[in-house]
Amino acid sequence: MEGSSVSMIDQNLLPFKFKIYTSRSYQDTCRAIRTMLIRGAGAIGAAAGFAMAQAVLSAPKNGFSAYISKAKKEIEATRPTAQNLFYAVQRVFNKAVNSKNPKRDAAAEAQMIADEDAGNCRKIGEFGSVLIKDGAGIETHCNAGWLAFVDRGTALAPVFAARDEGKKVFVYVDETRPRGQGAKLTAWELKNEKIPYAIIPDNAGAYLMSQGKVDIMIVGADRIAANGDVANKIGTLEKAIAAKEYNIPFYIAAPSSTFDLKCRTGNDIPIEERSEEEVLYQTGMTNDGRTEKILVCSPGSRAINPAFDVTPARYITGIITEKGIIKASRNSIKKLFSKI
Amino acid sequence: MEGSSVSMIDQNLLPFKFKIYTSRSYQDTCRAIRTMLIRGAGAIGAAAGFAMAQAVLSAPKNGFSAYISKAKKEIEATRPTAQNLFYAVQRVFNKAVNSKNPKRDAAAEAQMIADEDAGNCRKIGEFGSVLIKDGAGIETHCNAGWLAFVDRGTALAPVFAARDEGKKVFVYVDETRPRGQGAKLTAWELKNEKIPYAIIPDNAGAYLMSQGKVDIMIVGADRIAANGDVANKIGTLEKAIAAKEYNIPFYIAAPSSTFDLKCRTGNDIPIEERSEEEVLYQTGMTNDGRTEKILVCSPGSRAINPAFDVTPARYITGIITEKGIIKASRNSIKKLFSKI
Repeated sequence: MEGSSVSMIDQNLLPFKFKIYTSRSYQDTCRAIRTMLIRGAGAIGAAAGFAMAQAVLSAPKNGFSAYISKAKKEIEATRPTAQNLFYAVQRVFNKAVNSKNPKRDAAAEAQMIADEDAGNCRKIGEFGSVLIKDGAGIETHCNAGWLAFVDRGTALAPVFAARDEGKKVFVYVDETRPRGQGAKLTAWELKNEKIPYAIIPDNAGAYLMSQGKVDIMIVGADRIAANGDVANKIGTLEKAIAAKEYNIPFYIAAPSSTFDLKCRTGNDIPIEERSEEEVLYQTGMTNDGRTEKILVCSPGSRAINPAFDVTPARYITGIITEKGIIKASRNSIKKLFSKI
Repeated sequence: MEGSSVSMIDQNLLPFKFKIYTSRSYQDTCRAIRTMLIRGAGAIGAAAGFAMAQAVLSAPKNGFSAYISKAKKEIEATRPTAQNLFYAVQRVFNKAVNSKNPKRDAAAEAQMIADEDAGNCRKIGEFGSVLIKDGAGIETHCNAGWLAFVDRGTALAPVFAARDEGKKVFVYVDETRPRGQGAKLTAWELKNEKIPYAIIPDNAGAYLMSQGKVDIMIVGADRIAANGDVANKIGTLEKAIAAKEYNIPFYIAAPSSTFDLKCRTGNDIPIEERSEEEVLYQTGMTNDGRTEKILVCSPGSRAINPAFDVTPARYITGIITEKGIIKASRNSIKKLFSKI
């Protein structure tokens, strides 16, 4: 954030174009979140915090409270599942209403949330890397690398840390239909980081597990309930069930801001249904470098497009947080928060 | 087959164009199988039988035996997994070498295999429809409808039969990446049959099961080992594991020609690895009706593309054959073949 502008990588153009998008208003930032120009739990959280700060900066003196309350609701309505969004908006809002200099303090609070996110990712990497053996095959789903957060990311942070420690790693990247965040974003990050990887169809996960190729699976989270149930990108549940079947450790990597203790279980987490267009059409690059959207289904078909699913705690080996690795259980989560 | 020509629907053009491809030689038919112009276990079997007959028809009087033996090897080398292919080629070959009029008898035998396939599919439909309750949600993977066979198909045959009996059904169609046979072919068939359906990302299977939407899952098979392990389209294994977790009946629909008693278990079934291009690129239709191939992954990425996986018998509720529904067990399979 500079002045009242927020700059972010346009993830809808990746991996074919790298462009920074600069949002000049909170409405602009809302649109960026809604259209998934910016996406990923931590990145959404940081952007939402900045959007709240933008709203505070543009609020009129008369009707300040009403203006920022309305803005808060608009920002919260952009996407329903990622807990980081609600966490960041609430923090910046609280700071603003309790401050004598709300404009300065809201911006500083939003910046602090972004910085904390970067710091937390680094710690998640340090704690998580001990789980990765030299020569390990690691499967991941969706994108929870540095694009999904302010820096480093969550699910990929242990991979980056393991590599930094000199371990050999190989990442199996679930392409993650329908939007292909694995094929498009995780693959792009790993290539930039020079970490060996291969994209696999989502369908190939259990097969590779059955062949002994996958030593550990690490994914991110969009929201974690008080009992350890985890909402994450659609398909996570299926991988977790398969991993349990093959006795493969299945870890969630997420900072404490992803926990929502108001959700007793995963049943309380709202699941976003997105447009069927995302399933029916695919966007990519033609041989001559044009971006093209094509229909990949039988014309006239309907589709169902739940963006997330909930993985019950019983399938989760552990949750890698910035405070250490904990069990996905009500007690362990209670203990984690008693320390914070 | 008419004369020495074999006509088939060009499945690579579907669902955007409907065109009949006519192959004039066994080499032509081999190419059609290899490029998946024709695909699906039963359709591959029928095409391979006709290819063998085409080879017999074009064989010279001198060196007849050597010519058809070489052709047999070429046809068998087109695709390694579908048992129906080897079954049909062997039957037509045996007929030719043991006949006084090999040209006439080979063509008749190939036609008989195709007719048997159509009859078997109809019987699979009759046996399978009793498993489908009125109002059922049925999930299927890949395409095992009438395109994949000579007529009706296997996995969809019980659905067609249930509909004919007046039952209400709804089909959840796994899109089936990487080639999208569900989204492109199964959806196209169901639309033509006016059966309500929705395409779902492969990732959404377990989620819909967890929501109680799926009452039964029925898929086809490319090869069934003597112990009931089943090779089928990649992703079948993952669905079978998820179905077991949610106590959802998981059925295989396949004629007895899909069983390969020479394979003691699924470990003996060779799994075809296809080109990584199939994962990295997608083909579809642009808004203005052109067919376009686009890159849907981060440029410079590698991919892994196993075309099939093996589902262990323990996940399979039963196998719907043309002789009745049997358990996926060595004993039940032995009994089935003692009747044939």
